[in-house]
Amino acid sequence: VVLAPGELVRVGGPLRKDVAGYDLKRLLIGSEGTLGVITAAWLRLLPAPEVFLPVVGFYDGIPAGAAALERVVASGLAVAALEYLEGGALAAAGGAFPGGVPPSASFLVVTEADGSREEAARLREEVVQALAEGALAVRTPEAPADVAALWRWREGVSFAVTARRGSKVSEDVVVPFDRIAEGMEGTLEIGRRHGLEACSWGHAGDGNLHSTFLVTPGDAEELERCERAVDDLFALALRLGGSISGEHGVGVLKRAHVADYLAPSVVSLQAQIKRAFDPKGLFNPGKKL
Amino acid sequence: VVLAPGELVRVGGPLRKDVAGYDLKRLLIGSEGTLGVITAAWLRLLPAPEVFLPVVGFYDGIPAGAAALERVVASGLAVAALEYLEGGALAAAGGAFPGGVPPSASFLVVTEADGSREEAARLREEVVQALAEGALAVRTPEAPADVAALWRWREGVSFAVTARRGSKVSEDVVVPFDRIAEGMEGTLEIGRRHGLEACSWGHAGDGNLHSTFLVTPGDAEELERCERAVDDLFALALRLGGSISGEHGVGVLKRAHVADYLAPSVVSLQAQIKRAFDPKGLFNPGKKL
Repeated sequence: VVLAPGELVRVGGPLRKDVAGYDLKRLLIGSEGTLGVITAAWLRLLPAPEVFLPVVGFYDGIPAGAAALERVVASGLAVAALEYLEGGALAAAGGAFPGGVPPSASFLVVTEADGSREEAARLREEVVQALAEGALAVRTPEAPADVAALWRWREGVSFAVTARRGSKVSEDVVVPFDRIAEGMEGTLEIGRRHGLEACSWGHAGDGNLHSTFLVTPGDAEELERCERAVDDLFALALRLGGSISGEHGVGVLKRAHVADYLAPSVVSLQAQIKRAFDPKGLFNPGKKL
Repeated sequence: VVLAPGELVRVGGPLRKDVAGYDLKRLLIGSEGTLGVITAAWLRLLPAPEVFLPVVGFYDGIPAGAAALERVVASGLAVAALEYLEGGALAAAGGAFPGGVPPSASFLVVTEADGSREEAARLREEVVQALAEGALAVRTPEAPADVAALWRWREGVSFAVTARRGSKVSEDVVVPFDRIAEGMEGTLEIGRRHGLEACSWGHAGDGNLHSTFLVTPGDAEELERCERAVDDLFALALRLGGSISGEHGVGVLKRAHVADYLAPSVVSLQAQIKRAFDPKGLFNPGKKL
């Protein structure tokens, strides 16, 4: 990392353990360029799995779908992915789902077993059992082309939701895993309160919801209602013990909200850390905090 | 965590993702009580493995033993442990090794496959293959009593080495995994240079060596030579791209050495972080930095 005023130093390295100083490496990771300029990194690689075996479950409604998610986690099944789409997102993206969506489905779970051929097959069997209860259908695509088609479809969900009305405001909140159904229901309730079409999808295993409100491009009044809905959404995430940003950072947009989320003494410590690293405020000004 | 002057705040929590602020949680972990008082923690639990299947390999010398360690890692075998004892440590502790040590063995590798019954068995087979080349013997204890006896013996290694002369100076350095043989050979060379009996054992998979010099209790002159040997050992760890502390922290003893290991600008940042958290210097004074 290049630290102010322009010194190149190594923090971290190809070591599995190091407790000689404070963990500045982790402080720099996720700092969005506000503490220094990271110019190189060592990455820890894991062996590629032999096979990827997805399991897909369709449900009617959030309670049945969230119960399936909870069974996977509560059974200690070490799946490589645990994704969900709630009704609105599934309605927007389901038309292109490989093999089609059962008529009354309004909740989708996509998970994946990976590892060695034998281990992935064994894990998949347990995942199928966990997903089966209350499911409208459970599917296990296996041919590499079918597996690739599933994940290609998943990558397109955000675009399909945007296409529904031409624009959207999509957030990235996190809640403890056991509060995830409340996060999904709460997103819909906030939409109703502000007269907005709402939906969510995301990385259920991480408690990470992409809570979304659809908007018509150019409708300034609707966009304003969206902003109030987002305020409510962040308040919901905090009430559930979560965070206003799971993976997409703070940047400019969430900057004003960080202080609501963190204790005043933590906000002050972060500002002091910023000053210690960057006394002249030159690194990515106006971002993160 | 209780921050100065006495405020209880939550940092982190039962969330898998959170990028709303700087990672103060990781800054506090390993800070040895110098930034605040951690009063509670959420722990992420993993499902307990069904079985533990250790594999033990005996070798004649560091080159053969280190080559076996490298084959395990280079094969991408996800073992739960990868421990080693070099000659001096094996001589001190080998007498109590369950089942005995082959006559010409001067290097021991202890590794373990775990997981489901089938997966652990499959992994063990691959580990046996990786350890077999150049081995004097490979053993696979399987009965729960034998597995427990092996790890109980491993727990006693440090005491057995102490018992050899009545006292020891044992360090906790880390090097990149691919430099571990140099760390072992270097430890012996430093011992020879200072007229000290040296040995090492440790967590090879982490590149973590417990490099040790034996001393006679009450021999002040020998202890002084030990201190110079430890200086050389830390210099060796740094030359190999490692760290002076892998898991046992800094505390009082290594405090004077930290500045040799970290860049001056990093030392200054750490001091500023300490001042931001603890302006009156009340938290665990005289430790860590």
